Amino acid sequence: MPYSHPPDPDIPVAGGGLLDRRLFLRHSLGTGLALAGFEAMADAEPPPWMKTPGASFTNYGHPSPFEKDAIRWISANPGAPGNGISWTPLHKLEGIVTPNGLHFERHHNGVPRIDPDQHRLLIHGLVKNPLSFGVDDLLRYPLVSRLCFVECGGNSNAGWHAEPIQTPAGYFHGLASCSEWTGVPLATLLNETGLLPQARWLIAEGADADALNMSIPVEKALDDALVALYQNGERLRPENGYPMRIILPGWEAVLNVKWLRRLQAAQEPAMARNETAQYTEPQPSGIARQFSFIMEAKSFITHPSPGHRLRGPGLYQISGLAWSGRGKIKRVEVSADGGKSWAEAALQEPVLAQCFTRFRLPWRWNGQPLVLKSRAVDETGYVQPERSVLIDARGHNGYFHYNAIVAWAVAADGSLSHVYA
Amino acid sequence: MPYSHPPDPDIPVAGGGLLDRRLFLRHSLGTGLALAGFEAMADAEPPPWMKTPGASFTNYGHPSPFEKDAIRWISANPGAPGNGISWTPLHKLEGIVTPNGLHFERHHNGVPRIDPDQHRLLIHGLVKNPLSFGVDDLLRYPLVSRLCFVECGGNSNAGWHAEPIQTPAGYFHGLASCSEWTGVPLATLLNETGLLPQARWLIAEGADADALNMSIPVEKALDDALVALYQNGERLRPENGYPMRIILPGWEAVLNVKWLRRLQAAQEPAMARNETAQYTEPQPSGIARQFSFIMEAKSFITHPSPGHRLRGPGLYQISGLAWSGRGKIKRVEVSADGGKSWAEAALQEPVLAQCFTRFRLPWRWNGQPLVLKSRAVDETGYVQPERSVLIDARGHNGYFHYNAIVAWAVAADGSLSHVYA
Repeated sequence: MPYSHPPDPDIPVAGGGLLDRRLFLRHSLGTGLALAGFEAMADAEPPPWMKTPGASFTNYGHPSPFEKDAIRWISANPGAPGNGISWTPLHKLEGIVTPNGLHFERHHNGVPRIDPDQHRLLIHGLVKNPLSFGVDDLLRYPLVSRLCFVECGGNSNAGWHAEPIQTPAGYFHGLASCSEWTGVPLATLLNETGLLPQARWLIAEGADADALNMSIPVEKALDDALVALYQNGERLRPENGYPMRIILPGWEAVLNVKWLRRLQAAQEPAMARNETAQYTEPQPSGIARQFSFIMEAKSFITHPSPGHRLRGPGLYQISGLAWSGRGKIKRVEVSADGGKSWAEAALQEPVLAQCFTRFRLPWRWNGQPLVLKSRAVDETGYVQPERSVLIDARGHNGYFHYNAIVAWAVAADGSLSHVYA
Repeated sequence: MPYSHPPDPDIPVAGGGLLDRRLFLRHSLGTGLALAGFEAMADAEPPPWMKTPGASFTNYGHPSPFEKDAIRWISANPGAPGNGISWTPLHKLEGIVTPNGLHFERHHNGVPRIDPDQHRLLIHGLVKNPLSFGVDDLLRYPLVSRLCFVECGGNSNAGWHAEPIQTPAGYFHGLASCSEWTGVPLATLLNETGLLPQARWLIAEGADADALNMSIPVEKALDDALVALYQNGERLRPENGYPMRIILPGWEAVLNVKWLRRLQAAQEPAMARNETAQYTEPQPSGIARQFSFIMEAKSFITHPSPGHRLRGPGLYQISGLAWSGRGKIKRVEVSADGGKSWAEAALQEPVLAQCFTRFRLPWRWNGQPLVLKSRAVDETGYVQPERSVLIDARGHNGYFHYNAIVAWAVAADGSLSHVYA
């Protein structure tokens, strides 16, 4: 647990009322709980749901009907409803695991309904021994599990807009989700087929109606790539690649090809639509970045965030998510004065490489307007940049790979909004 | 990854063909994959699902229709359908996270439909300052997250039967599941109310139609108990205590009271039905064990297990789960000769206290009948006992807290069955 050895909670460690990360609240929240107070529930009439037998058992469960706002937010092409995205509501979630029903989606031509008994993965091209694998074949191989994030290269791209977008945080940064993926190391399968010396790329193809294809460097395929069959313990969800997909820890999601049917070893990349016309970034020089695979360190505050409302001055816990495609998160700092001063947040265990990391910090709000920010530092020493620094380097037309520091303005009435500050 | 620095894969490290845990397969599976072979998929007609646009987006996702066998198995009282249990299909799952839709259930009078805005938790009795907390009040406090298992005290109790039960492994040991729980430390709330010196127990009551009550020692409440609000990132599922439940890491599930509405600080335990008539264990002496809170170390092999069928001699990966209510799993050993010799399995990271731990070991089956076993050792040095040792100590009428070594017999035809060996 991140809280222990409480220092004096009345001494802020940074501006805006930020308190020490080791502070475990050992005194009343005061105003906040005065609203609650004491009710004679001990003698009160029991609630209606205690007076009638409850619902019986279910083979597969679903969320409470009272949580119908905790859903993926969909943005699809009206003319091609299978082409679009849906965001994970990270502003509604806690911890680091994304439940499978809320994992973000990006489809180019919808979710195919694949019969796993008829689906096969072919590995061919510049290989010594082309092979095809069914699900049962893959399950013969050693499986490994990996808790890691998958993030769309276009996540957070509203940050490039001239005006700060006003949406809940999850519908701004929620093209990222985190699951425990279990599958066969791609290196194991490539050892079966063998690779010819001139093979530099693997061209992956999905079994969707878009036949989405992407080029993966052989080095990454031999390093930590998985052909995943399970997501958070159960088989992959259809929208996440059932029955098999590639997982490339820390790399942009479009390369984590879903519904994987083919890996063609080649000397050159395919120069496919999604690595030329899309998922490349025009820069101020006029030259576009291509093959920008790695998702750099990012963080943002999920609680409180736009759409939430503070219930008046007093103690709160600031909570958020940080991650880096380059390894573990080393440190997250939080500012409550727009970046003038910073306090180090507590990182919730486990802290894993290429995985969501939950950070938390106690905060005493004095009721005045101020600006909250978070800043992630990963184990390579990379520091999440301020927006102005990212814009200077990449211009306003980057579209992909936006990872600047995020600022939430807190108003005197306790409401929050997204600002560029 | 557990596999590296491969030794010669042809040298078993224990009987029955067990291979070194560090072996990363760098050679063909042979017979297994000969079944697959090469098909000219590169030039083949694409499958039907590539010729039509796929399904569009969903606000909340569900498993593939082809996975309809991966469900909770229900055993309920026909006269009182809300009284019974449902098992997690651990024989169908991989990794350590249990998806929320498959978390096991034990209800005494069904699942209440609770309006979170009307639900409150009352802490009263031998406290200085009785308080009641709504969900919004609790969300003001510092939250912590904890990946840990919840296991019913009656899990695996078919092991007490005179004859080995023949069911899939999950429907034998699946009254245990593992989630990332997020909530408020109970110690924080007890600090708000204060405890009078004579308070030794907290009598917890659920808001179900059974008003299930259980007595929790104050020491555990002040140690690592949580009032959980989130499960694997999202709010609790109704069948797991929505909107709030107690989590007591490592302690039998019945004490992890769901739909928590009341904690009464008291000098003596309630001597409630579920700590006297139930969840106690008659011993050979005639004296029953009571307040046997901690779930001791347990392990079993999920793959392969009864219901699976080996596809002939060759290489396989043995995979299973281990956990201990006393802390981290230190070691899991696997035997393929009925317990005459043992090999150490690889433990998948992360290895966390009071959490499912996935173990894996490569195995070359020679096609002969044999018996597979696993044996867990936790960080306290406790060793999972053979069944005969457990029966000698506890007799045949224990009913609860069965954690003996589990044996799967492999027949020459590749089928598996549960045996006492």
